Amino acid sequence: MDESRFPSVTFGSRSVKNIVYDRKLQQFVLGPAMVKRSAANIKHIRPFTQLLWLAYFAQKLVHEKKTSTLRDVFYSAQAFDVEFVDQAESDELITDLEVLTRMAREGLNIYPEERSAIFGNMTIAYTVPGYEGKRADLSANPDGVMIGPALTTAEFKDTDAEMVLAIEKGGLFTRFVEERVHKKYKAILINTAGQPPRSTRYLIRRLNQELGLPVGILCDADPWGAHIAMVIKSGSAGAAHLRELTTPSAVWLGVWASDIVKYKLPNDKLTEVDIKRLYELKADPRYTDKMWHDELDTFLKIKKKSEQEAFARYGLSYIVDTYLPEKLELMKRA
Amino acid sequence: MDESRFPSVTFGSRSVKNIVYDRKLQQFVLGPAMVKRSAANIKHIRPFTQLLWLAYFAQKLVHEKKTSTLRDVFYSAQAFDVEFVDQAESDELITDLEVLTRMAREGLNIYPEERSAIFGNMTIAYTVPGYEGKRADLSANPDGVMIGPALTTAEFKDTDAEMVLAIEKGGLFTRFVEERVHKKYKAILINTAGQPPRSTRYLIRRLNQELGLPVGILCDADPWGAHIAMVIKSGSAGAAHLRELTTPSAVWLGVWASDIVKYKLPNDKLTEVDIKRLYELKADPRYTDKMWHDELDTFLKIKKKSEQEAFARYGLSYIVDTYLPEKLELMKRA
Repeated sequence: MDESRFPSVTFGSRSVKNIVYDRKLQQFVLGPAMVKRSAANIKHIRPFTQLLWLAYFAQKLVHEKKTSTLRDVFYSAQAFDVEFVDQAESDELITDLEVLTRMAREGLNIYPEERSAIFGNMTIAYTVPGYEGKRADLSANPDGVMIGPALTTAEFKDTDAEMVLAIEKGGLFTRFVEERVHKKYKAILINTAGQPPRSTRYLIRRLNQELGLPVGILCDADPWGAHIAMVIKSGSAGAAHLRELTTPSAVWLGVWASDIVKYKLPNDKLTEVDIKRLYELKADPRYTDKMWHDELDTFLKIKKKSEQEAFARYGLSYIVDTYLPEKLELMKRA
Repeated sequence: MDESRFPSVTFGSRSVKNIVYDRKLQQFVLGPAMVKRSAANIKHIRPFTQLLWLAYFAQKLVHEKKTSTLRDVFYSAQAFDVEFVDQAESDELITDLEVLTRMAREGLNIYPEERSAIFGNMTIAYTVPGYEGKRADLSANPDGVMIGPALTTAEFKDTDAEMVLAIEKGGLFTRFVEERVHKKYKAILINTAGQPPRSTRYLIRRLNQELGLPVGILCDADPWGAHIAMVIKSGSAGAAHLRELTTPSAVWLGVWASDIVKYKLPNDKLTEVDIKRLYELKADPRYTDKMWHDELDTFLKIKKKSEQEAFARYGLSYIVDTYLPEKLELMKRA
């Protein structure tokens, strides 16, 4: 502005046309198209101002070492008379800020509401204010520790873990803790609590990249479970501008469609919504791998789905004593 | 059977007619009507057998020191060729078993999927297998520890806490941890994660009864938030047969309808569903207290709702520095 020029920002376009699947990275990425927001364009003034305020607010958060939820950001704007129609609009602009800064919003101290949990033989050191350097033993609480801002940013210290197991449901997570999977298989256990929040995917990637731990994923045998595994592995189209949320080497251990047949699992019929979803996944570029495609086809063929808990039909320990060892062979081969 | 008599069981009826509100206990209780299930009645054989199997299974769980989810119970039955049409049926029978044994299912090691979290200056001692007597400091992990089977059954050891604050949302829970509410106000913080699972209500009651700590509840200013507070305080009709899940002295601290006006909070219009729900609550015997009734009326008058995060419009610390101290005065007076 000192040079009498209108300020502007330029960053990668997130339009559907510009989201492409990168086979090598095994995730969606942004293509070459860019968008420019300039204070000289009257239509741009609103999003340009919103983006500037967001950058200011995020910088303030990081500086003051506070965290904020997406919802907090929406309301905080009102204190500055910066207008967002609704949270969907502020969420959009936060994503723009991610593209612009090439940083995940977690790095800007902005977190979602949802949480999942972690358990295992690992000592971490927290980095959040008041806890700098304080260590915590992640096997001290058998119900698990919540994965929030503090855990996501913690440093990994001592661990004898040889793998990470991400589990869709709290019930099975507790079963694994009770059956001492963390000791028997030297596994760090993560309860993803359904489709894991981004911060949990970020943590899974960190465990994989920083400690070189292989990651296995256990979910329900239905299209929604399969997609939980896929999103941990290859991320989502909505985060095509980020590399911090994927774990391409993660292995989908099950429960597969073919497991329903192999283990004669109690099952339910696929609903119409399930079937529609399966066809969507078949058309999804993330599902090109033959094994994944075959499993989608098996679902459609047998028209059945099943849950992780269905193994309880063979006794509560069966899934740990019989099913898991068979599946872990896959991880060794992967 | 040795005496040539058909075995039978008799327990309190859970039919709607037999659920009455007890003003003194401030909760729903079962009336005097009883049901009898006899092996002599062909229509009773199925539920009688299911109930017997459940009692056997629960006894086995407790004996083997394992826990199970409601879903696990449904599938485990199949290993014994005990038939349940669906999980709704097995859940029903588990409730019958609660009535019969006069024990909460948590005492029979049967837990739900959902979890919430706890944080604060308190040392606990776990009692679950492999952790007997092991202590954990609930301020060691700033994201909180999950409240599952292990925490629910832990013994409370050292604490300097003077109150319990139950918070509806993870974002505000994290804010309270960051703002050191556990130290400033000597509070144990609980993230209820929406309507708290039963095990969390059980834990809140234990903190209140065993340690004599007053309990304050903070939720969104809408009928759903108010009802979260009410269920923590007075329980639900579905658990009319239990006394272990209520905390009658708990105080609804807000966010009230009148707070939307008083603090000029950003707000949304009530939807038709919200309004319908408010009329339902007005007719609910748990809401007879004048203060609660007045707040329901205020909602209907101003036709607005608001969220806990709305306070962020006055800065992220405002809710802790200004709103909370005003509300805590209420707890002292209660």
